[in-house]
Amino acid sequence: MLGVAVRKIERAEPGIIAALRDAGVASVHEAQGRTGSMGAELGALVPGAIMGGSAVTALCAPGDNWMLHVAIELMQPGDVLVVATTSPSDDGYFGDVLAEYVRCRGGAGVVLDTGVRDVAVLRAERFPVWSRRVSAQGTIKQTLGAVNVPVICCGQRVVPGDVVLGDDDGVVVVARRRAAAVLADVQARIAKEEAMRAGLREGGHTLDLLGLREGLLQKGLRYVDGPVSWDAEGDL
Amino acid sequence: MLGVAVRKIERAEPGIIAALRDAGVASVHEAQGRTGSMGAELGALVPGAIMGGSAVTALCAPGDNWMLHVAIELMQPGDVLVVATTSPSDDGYFGDVLAEYVRCRGGAGVVLDTGVRDVAVLRAERFPVWSRRVSAQGTIKQTLGAVNVPVICCGQRVVPGDVVLGDDDGVVVVARRRAAAVLADVQARIAKEEAMRAGLREGGHTLDLLGLREGLLQKGLRYVDGPVSWDAEGDL
Amino acid sequence: MLGVAVRKIERAEPGIIAALRDAGVASVHEAQGRTGSMGAELGALVPGAIMGGSAVTALCAPGDNWMLHVAIELMQPGDVLVVATTSPSDDGYFGDVLAEYVRCRGGAGVVLDTGVRDVAVLRAERFPVWSRRVSAQGTIKQTLGAVNVPVICCGQRVVPGDVVLGDDDGVVVVARRRAAAVLADVQARIAKEEAMRAGLREGGHTLDLLGLREGLLQKGLRYVDGPVSWDAEGDL
Amino acid sequence: MLGVAVRKIERAEPGIIAALRDAGVASVHEAQGRTGSMGAELGALVPGAIMGGSAVTALCAPGDNWMLHVAIELMQPGDVLVVATTSPSDDGYFGDVLAEYVRCRGGAGVVLDTGVRDVAVLRAERFPVWSRRVSAQGTIKQTLGAVNVPVICCGQRVVPGDVVLGDDDGVVVVARRRAAAVLADVQARIAKEEAMRAGLREGGHTLDLLGLREGLLQKGLRYVDGPVSWDAEGDL
Amino acid sequence: MLGVAVRKIERAEPGIIAALRDAGVASVHEAQGRTGSMGAELGALVPGAIMGGSAVTALCAPGDNWMLHVAIELMQPGDVLVVATTSPSDDGYFGDVLAEYVRCRGGAGVVLDTGVRDVAVLRAERFPVWSRRVSAQGTIKQTLGAVNVPVICCGQRVVPGDVVLGDDDGVVVVARRRAAAVLADVQARIAKEEAMRAGLREGGHTLDLLGLREGLLQKGLRYVDGPVSWDAEGDL
Amino acid sequence: MLGVAVRKIERAEPGIIAALRDAGVASVHEAQGRTGSMGAELGALVPGAIMGGSAVTALCAPGDNWMLHVAIELMQPGDVLVVATTSPSDDGYFGDVLAEYVRCRGGAGVVLDTGVRDVAVLRAERFPVWSRRVSAQGTIKQTLGAVNVPVICCGQRVVPGDVVLGDDDGVVVVARRRAAAVLADVQARIAKEEAMRAGLREGGHTLDLLGLREGLLQKGLRYVDGPVSWDAEGDL
Repeated sequence: MLGVAVRKIERAEPGIIAALRDAGVASVHEAQGRTGSMGAELGALVPGAIMGGSAVTALCAPGDNWMLHVAIELMQPGDVLVVATTSPSDDGYFGDVLAEYVRCRGGAGVVLDTGVRDVAVLRAERFPVWSRRVSAQGTIKQTLGAVNVPVICCGQRVVPGDVVLGDDDGVVVVARRRAAAVLADVQARIAKEEAMRAGLREGGHTLDLLGLREGLLQKGLRYVDGPVSWDAEGDL
Repeated sequence: MLGVAVRKIERAEPGIIAALRDAGVASVHEAQGRTGSMGAELGALVPGAIMGGSAVTALCAPGDNWMLHVAIELMQPGDVLVVATTSPSDDGYFGDVLAEYVRCRGGAGVVLDTGVRDVAVLRAERFPVWSRRVSAQGTIKQTLGAVNVPVICCGQRVVPGDVVLGDDDGVVVVARRRAAAVLADVQARIAKEEAMRAGLREGGHTLDLLGLREGLLQKGLRYVDGPVSWDAEGDL
Repeated sequence: MLGVAVRKIERAEPGIIAALRDAGVASVHEAQGRTGSMGAELGALVPGAIMGGSAVTALCAPGDNWMLHVAIELMQPGDVLVVATTSPSDDGYFGDVLAEYVRCRGGAGVVLDTGVRDVAVLRAERFPVWSRRVSAQGTIKQTLGAVNVPVICCGQRVVPGDVVLGDDDGVVVVARRRAAAVLADVQARIAKEEAMRAGLREGGHTLDLLGLREGLLQKGLRYVDGPVSWDAEGDL
Repeated sequence: MLGVAVRKIERAEPGIIAALRDAGVASVHEAQGRTGSMGAELGALVPGAIMGGSAVTALCAPGDNWMLHVAIELMQPGDVLVVATTSPSDDGYFGDVLAEYVRCRGGAGVVLDTGVRDVAVLRAERFPVWSRRVSAQGTIKQTLGAVNVPVICCGQRVVPGDVVLGDDDGVVVVARRRAAAVLADVQARIAKEEAMRAGLREGGHTLDLLGLREGLLQKGLRYVDGPVSWDAEGDL
Repeated sequence: MLGVAVRKIERAEPGIIAALRDAGVASVHEAQGRTGSMGAELGALVPGAIMGGSAVTALCAPGDNWMLHVAIELMQPGDVLVVATTSPSDDGYFGDVLAEYVRCRGGAGVVLDTGVRDVAVLRAERFPVWSRRVSAQGTIKQTLGAVNVPVICCGQRVVPGDVVLGDDDGVVVVARRRAAAVLADVQARIAKEEAMRAGLREGGHTLDLLGLREGLLQKGLRYVDGPVSWDAEGDL
Repeated sequence: MLGVAVRKIERAEPGIIAALRDAGVASVHEAQGRTGSMGAELGALVPGAIMGGSAVTALCAPGDNWMLHVAIELMQPGDVLVVATTSPSDDGYFGDVLAEYVRCRGGAGVVLDTGVRDVAVLRAERFPVWSRRVSAQGTIKQTLGAVNVPVICCGQRVVPGDVVLGDDDGVVVVARRRAAAVLADVQARIAKEEAMRAGLREGGHTLDLLGLREGLLQKGLRYVDGPVSWDAEGDL
């Protein structure tokens, strides 16, 4: 499916996207059964940045960022650009000029399975971008890829229009059709966490608040008074 | 020694702990003969955070953080939670809710030979935590481990009650019984460094201030006037 | 060429150095044909720091920072200290006291193909240093190396007096004799980028502003209206 | 799509699979436009092993290999087992007993985006398995995944029935529907290579045999007689 | 405890050591509750080598192998040399001459949390050595360490006299006092595995032989006839 | 110096090259003061292969192997091809067809600061090649580089005509003008090692044969009879 740029894609509802973004990457990952994470290697360039939007995808040749230009042209306000390559590349596909272009298009952020450059400028502007690395090495413009086709980015499949969320915990993808259901699960989890925080502030223990204590004792945990003198040969 | 939680441990004196913490990880590591460092992989989540306290240890199964809940329950104000696993795991064992719990218990910080999650919240609160990585992937609660037994965390053995120090240079462990002696060595080193800084500001050179110049000349260092034209074939 | 310290080296003109520094590492790397980069592993310790100066080089034995003391003694205001080793080492060669010394000598910054320590202090002082890693482990002073000889630092050859530039994108080296020519190329590139930014703000597209659109169509890119239903077996 | 095991899948023709396998991973990767490679991290456990077959996929929870047992039950002679996880895991999912089971089912090989164990036995038996790492740490059997659903394995999407090829260069995936077309391209490439080898043995040069010489001269390559004396300041 | 070399240590029974060695690293690791593994980074230099013996430990300074000479002097036939450092080092601590020395002393093998060198010779002689890496860079002999004190090697504590086992799956440590109990567990596991292999050869399935099928159905696994057409938007 | 191919270079004497090759990489590295090593990342593709020859260098653009064709054309019997890039690349620059070409030219081996492919064939033919990685991803032929200019390969500067040696310990470079002097040092070291091996076989200890025992005692090493009971709190 190289050589194609798809103009129109279906997107999730803005309200759902915003609510998922605010719930945070770790909570959403948990709520959809620990799936969709782009992994620990994908760091936020700007600590504290958060991002949520509909995926516009660019599939590029290694060392070649030509398709980014086409993809940004097709972005709509609130979209997230997701950049994958047909074969691995660590080059600096994205820098300050393209960031300006994304901003002019109203984009919500960028995720790349490659490197980025001009990071001093991107940080100064607090541009929301997640990438596997920083690399000063630029790219060429010679080989066609595709825009708005399904891609694999950092181990996750992203279909155009999927919801892509980023924060300091990384990036997670939510399939467009499952977005509402995932949001419901997430919100239930968050309500539960808030009740627990209140309990903790009143001096409670998580073992009681989460109902984890009985299981501990059933499995045989012994509380022992100390101090104990460790004879190393019998221990770790 | 799995299936045990030790309630009482012996701790070092608070004054010694605080003085070691203020001396800093690199100085303490040097003063105890370059031992005790948890290595360069263990980064501070919050740049500029510093931590010092008595170790409360949790030994967990891979992918299972049940014992953290028991360990935090047994923490006293000023303690540092040290988390190790029986076999390696990169999962996100610790997040914002457990941070709230540690804070409610008066804990001084947390060190994990695993991943952490919810890092945007932890950073916003400047929670003092050191870990090998960030991971959005949570854990389960099914297998017993142990609390307050000796553990290996990031290549260092930590006995409950040992002094654990953290700053931007990483984390270092000081055996409880050696803490006073190490502190004395550290303070002597710091006094020497301050004298040297004063000398530098007056225009001195470290070769003279440290008495390193004579050795240089004895080993045969030649100062040569330049500029030299480098014929590459005879050089690096 | 071990056992030698060269006192006088030729330097590039301060005005050229300053202009290259302001242009930034990524632009300079691009302008000199994608050469001279010390790679993505070499991170700025202080985000946002920038550095430009003439290289004073120190070649050290592994685990031994003796030659740094000699090299700093020979630094002049505006110089950059470049530290390489005869064989790889990750130890903490450089810390707060040597930073004080470099500052007293008027140095513009430091680049090390090793580790650094005392990073909380270096960050607090915003000291401009680039290294491969942070390591609390100090070094000894027993083996001669050399000062102001050509060295290999992070994969790049640095001849004393070469221009060394650092920012958040990493570090790049420009040969002293080529500095003026590289600067001319860089400035042409920057002028072009600024015109493009203006065009983007007026709603233009990079494909038009860079003249990339015709090539796309010649190579056969098809713009397709959507939404498309992805039958996975025929696609990525 | 968790909790599902699909019994029947469509497979590519055995003759096409065998021909692709014999062509080798690097040639097939090249012939399908540099796509489909599972990357350099995925090593053959047994040097010299080759593998080709139709993908039967298992999607597992992290640290849990339950679904492998279901997937092997559904394998047919000539199939390749492809193991992915919903979230990353380095554990040892596959060992000598499961290898025995795959052999009893007539399987052609195994690819895992995890670790393997019992590798001495696997090597002694020259069992064709590719994995990201070796790990002695076993897994549990508690969480449902899925069998014969599309998975992401080492950065590539694998749909059940796709052709999976392995050799010392790694693993490459060919979409079932494209297998015949890719084979035609590969065979054309191989014929060309064999002609070139013959030319080389007769004393020819690749620049002539591949028609690359004229381009070199047009771009301005100058052949210079030597030897040259390298003045380091003007060169790398 | 630096500056000490302990001459006499207690060892496990040779029959137990040999039986654990023959059971293999992965089985022993599993039998002792997934503890004791030195991790996936510690590779066998010689594929197919196996090793089992009582630990004689050497604790060395970084870049300094002096204590290896003392430790080998104290080895008895059947012992395994375990080498750790006070602070990390990747240098080549062990090469062909020391291998000759270990052989002359009757040693069973060597494990190093560092590098090794002269590996062509070690491989040609099939010398049983496990290390984190290969490094041509040698070491010096200037700083005292210790011999036959407890050490941390590759994340595991090794007390002198502990049983150390190595094969292609890595290295595992068994505490001397637990050796007999671990062996009993291992042998029970192996008997069970052999019964399962026999069942597989008769056409059985692991789900039945291990009693795993009922749990699958209870958790809701659905077997679905296919082939299924994957609509990508609803799937991975 | 891009766009140049130098035809004639000066080479070291074949007898010296052969003697250095037979001495081995680790010994030569040691003999030239621990310099010249290309590091532990550069593995021999074929275990047991050894290589020694005069460097013919190729400097390539990232992802582009055009200059290899020019460099091999200029190789003479006994030469070693050294491949570097102007900016880092992990692609598969070298495969079975180019190996055939090198063999037709009488080349002694190949070293690449990139990846290689077709490794099953290269291994079957025991072709002597050292590279940083294996990669199925091929390269293009569009950008000029240079042949027989000084290059940086895996952190070492290689001037055309330098002696390049490879074995299982990695690769080491010896400057052409220093080759005879290095050989003399190496041979003295080897004679010493052989005397020591003889002493070991007669039951000697390295501490005596190397004169290391007295220093040990002077620094205060205490030999202590055991067994010792380790109280963990006072020890590692």
